[in-house]
Amino acid sequence: MKLVVVGATGAVGSVIMAILDERDLAISELVPVATARSAGSTLAHRGTTVTVRLLEPAVFDGADVAIFDVPDEVSHEWAPVAAGRGATVVDNSAAWRMAPDVPLVVPEVNPETALAPARGIIASPNCTMLTLVVPLAPLHRAAGVRRVIVSSYQSASGAGKPGVDELWAQVRQAAGSPEGTVTAGRAREVLGTGTAFAHPLALNVIPRIGSAQVGGYTSEEVKLAEETFKVLGLADLQMSATCVRVPTMVGHGVSVHAEFERPIGVEEARAVLTAAQGVELRDDTAAHVYPTPLEAAGRDAVFVGRIRQDPHDPRALAWFAVTDNLRKGAALNTIQIAELVASRLSDGQQGP
Amino acid sequence: MKLVVVGATGAVGSVIMAILDERDLAISELVPVATARSAGSTLAHRGTTVTVRLLEPAVFDGADVAIFDVPDEVSHEWAPVAAGRGATVVDNSAAWRMAPDVPLVVPEVNPETALAPARGIIASPNCTMLTLVVPLAPLHRAAGVRRVIVSSYQSASGAGKPGVDELWAQVRQAAGSPEGTVTAGRAREVLGTGTAFAHPLALNVIPRIGSAQVGGYTSEEVKLAEETFKVLGLADLQMSATCVRVPTMVGHGVSVHAEFERPIGVEEARAVLTAAQGVELRDDTAAHVYPTPLEAAGRDAVFVGRIRQDPHDPRALAWFAVTDNLRKGAALNTIQIAELVASRLSDGQQGP
Repeated sequence: MKLVVVGATGAVGSVIMAILDERDLAISELVPVATARSAGSTLAHRGTTVTVRLLEPAVFDGADVAIFDVPDEVSHEWAPVAAGRGATVVDNSAAWRMAPDVPLVVPEVNPETALAPARGIIASPNCTMLTLVVPLAPLHRAAGVRRVIVSSYQSASGAGKPGVDELWAQVRQAAGSPEGTVTAGRAREVLGTGTAFAHPLALNVIPRIGSAQVGGYTSEEVKLAEETFKVLGLADLQMSATCVRVPTMVGHGVSVHAEFERPIGVEEARAVLTAAQGVELRDDTAAHVYPTPLEAAGRDAVFVGRIRQDPHDPRALAWFAVTDNLRKGAALNTIQIAELVASRLSDGQQGP
Repeated sequence: MKLVVVGATGAVGSVIMAILDERDLAISELVPVATARSAGSTLAHRGTTVTVRLLEPAVFDGADVAIFDVPDEVSHEWAPVAAGRGATVVDNSAAWRMAPDVPLVVPEVNPETALAPARGIIASPNCTMLTLVVPLAPLHRAAGVRRVIVSSYQSASGAGKPGVDELWAQVRQAAGSPEGTVTAGRAREVLGTGTAFAHPLALNVIPRIGSAQVGGYTSEEVKLAEETFKVLGLADLQMSATCVRVPTMVGHGVSVHAEFERPIGVEEARAVLTAAQGVELRDDTAAHVYPTPLEAAGRDAVFVGRIRQDPHDPRALAWFAVTDNLRKGAALNTIQIAELVASRLSDGQQGP
């Protein structure tokens, strides 16, 4: 199939290119696309080089699938152009996720929704939501989830390459500064601030991601809840999220407290998660085995550990999960969706 | 009064010495005490120097108050020695906090319990618990708390000076390393590990603090719950905590979800917290005003922001709070308790 990757030179786009090299999606032609700043440069692809093209309608001619990792407004404009030329769009922005006629797909959870996208557009979810929902979905199938309280530990790369660059610059500033200065009200001056984050992120945590919304929740927290409702098909799930940026480069963590319809113990939860697709257990607290961002980096699974039954409510479980937000949280999920589309296309070619 | 400070040269002890200089506790004699490694050295105190003495029974002779910031086992052995010689002990370890005949005191919450300690020992709570309970207590008095779900963002200094030194060493390693290496499974090798933390902490989060307990909770999580129950006097409070170390130097954060007996909105919560002792509101999410560790460092208040009413439960509030764990979370709270004891002593001297 002919695959177009729009945003191929960005933080997630680079990971998409790397993962395509690792997996066996049958690609007859790969077209990386970017803005004028990168167009004309070349990228490695499965032992050859491919030239980055400028985003224009003609790049989608004859394309089977177009993966987009671009800002919402670019996707809003260009996804319909690609779909109009016959490509199935797999979009990683927030532009289409909540549209009623656009499926929001987590291949381990609701793959069937990818098979007939009404508008030719399939949305891939928010990276923190994937960390939450990949283990939550099988537990929900087992015991029926009714309430989720979640606090996140999100890395700088969730803000793209500018986020990573800004945190690296601040880490270098911190390393070169006298120890006392960063903890004596002089942090902003010593560490510096940039455009990705409103406060210094090195040696700090920032409990706001996205914009402030009505009711005090942020856009990131609203997305996390709404996308969870949509993927699980649960309009009446109760959820309250707090999204926090922490000074890690890669890997989003979530501390989850979930109430189910019936009692569920740690052993049953472990059995369910061991059998679940896309989940790896790291759950031996006594032996210091639990998910961490540095161990999740570069890996594909959602890692789950610290599984506990609420001592006051046998129907509630707590756990901690981490996934590489650039891989499963973004690039890998879009490629898994493209693989679902490819299998549908090849089924179609085989005829009835 | 004669004040003894045991552990005066440690991470918290140094802050105790600094805060004593700032506040007006009437001290006739100050005796700093430490182990053999520091005994004989001198410390600055209110414009003079005082000599650090070795821990032995005689240092408590004639003492009115002895503040202890030492490991649990040292406190277990030596607090009764000091109390036996007539000093009122204010202890910052976990050794005495849950003893039924030892009051656990947060001066803003339950100062009355400090007035007549049966064994001559008063315990000061865990630093994360203080960040939780200083705003929770007035909200509880207003609306009756019945359930708390909390996830923490705890700094390296919670593990003392070894924790701070270990994180600084790793930050310097990270700053001198190629960017890719810390995120490609080589973190342990590149950043190094030490004795304070089981995994690299720089550019990472570690979702275990303390030892693993029955049921999968950690000792830190159990302490956080039990101390909250004791300070609020609520044996039937439902609580589930997840304690996570993050790569900050100073300042413990908590993401709190609390259910109350009746509906409580954001405006009422803000009014309660504005009137509360020891709390400062930082609650304007749209303007990027919310608590952060770097802004809390070196300050005395518990900073509270991101106050939200749960969209699915009008009886539940979420908020984010941060305090300097070395000051209010440890040193300041013990000094505030010493001030309560001093006022009791001077009331007693005035006679009936």
